[in-house]
Amino acid sequence: MPIVTVKMLEGRNDDQKRALIEQITSTVVETVDATPESVTVIIEEMKPTHLGKAGKRPSDA
Amino acid sequence: MPIVTVKMLEGRNDDQKRALIEQITSTVVETVDATPESVTVIIEEMKPTHLGKAGKRPSDA
Amino acid sequence: MPIVTVKMLEGRNDDQKRALIEQITSTVVETVDATPESVTVIIEEMKPTHLGKAGKRPSDA
Amino acid sequence: MPIVTVKMLEGRNDDQKRALIEQITSTVVETVDATPESVTVIIEEMKPTHLGKAGKRPSDA
Amino acid sequence: MPIVTVKMLEGRNDDQKRALIEQITSTVVETVDATPESVTVIIEEMKPTHLGKAGKRPSDA
Amino acid sequence: MPIVTVKMLEGRNDDQKRALIEQITSTVVETVDATPESVTVIIEEMKPTHLGKAGKRPSDA
Repeated sequence: MPIVTVKMLEGRNDDQKRALIEQITSTVVETVDATPESVTVIIEEMKPTHLGKAGKRPSDA
Repeated sequence: MPIVTVKMLEGRNDDQKRALIEQITSTVVETVDATPESVTVIIEEMKPTHLGKAGKRPSDA
Repeated sequence: MPIVTVKMLEGRNDDQKRALIEQITSTVVETVDATPESVTVIIEEMKPTHLGKAGKRPSDA
Repeated sequence: MPIVTVKMLEGRNDDQKRALIEQITSTVVETVDATPESVTVIIEEMKPTHLGKAGKRPSDA
Repeated sequence: MPIVTVKMLEGRNDDQKRALIEQITSTVVETVDATPESVTVIIEEMKPTHLGKAGKRPSDA
Repeated sequence: MPIVTVKMLEGRNDDQKRALIEQITSTVVETVDATPESVTVIIEEMKPTHLGKAGKRPSDA
């Protein structure tokens, strides 16, 4: 029952999100011997004001 | 200090959310011997475009 | 497709964990109108050295 | 590669969020011997209707 | 800065885990226009006593 | 009710973990106007075989 969560900056379009979910599902099925029905993929978008790398936010760059 | 997170599709109304938080808290208190004050419940809603089961999204069905 | 994650201190026995999973599933089904088959419950145990409330760990009490 | 996630009620202003990300990054660097570049901080805001303590939501207080 | 977390039952071998991390990284790079260096993948294993689907655990089957 | 989760590679000693929890709590209290009692900090350690950056694991370096 793999559950995959992808956290990424907001801004991708719907085609990218659909492709991401489809292809991550395929990748999980192929690499760890899971059935497609057992795989759940969740996308969680982050705002550029809510994320920092080395203490800096994309919104402050 | 149990912390319970419920991820579910958006669309439930406020009464359902209140009942969910109340009753999950009671369930945790009864089953694992925790005090009510120690239990936190968090709801995280998902958009139908951000979730896939077997590679398919509810929004594409 | 509700996914419920319960983070709690390690130490509960197997009967408590089984009851927790069964009864949280029932609670979610009853309160937010989900089918039992759609509900996943995950338990994640924490060590007392890995948790702090008000900056204090149970292991330092 | 520490990844820090802060879940908190919505309502803090942008200066508070920037300071939170900067200072948590510094704290992690100093306490666990990580490079600044390796530290990621993520803020996730919660609505008062989506959070309960002892079964009560801030929105119902 | 996509961060991908894969929660799955324990039991996969090291080759499967390496392949999972490599191929999920490639999939994310191709589908959402991210650089490889920006992608982090985390595997979190679950015990069969800590997971329930429809209220039933794999360990009780 | 800020809840802070720190995911990092295993290997830090107990003094580092205690300091991390104490000082992150102080940082949150100072920057976002929370009471100490409301702050929870959780450490989650990752194995070097369960983490990849740019598709490479520390364990394969």
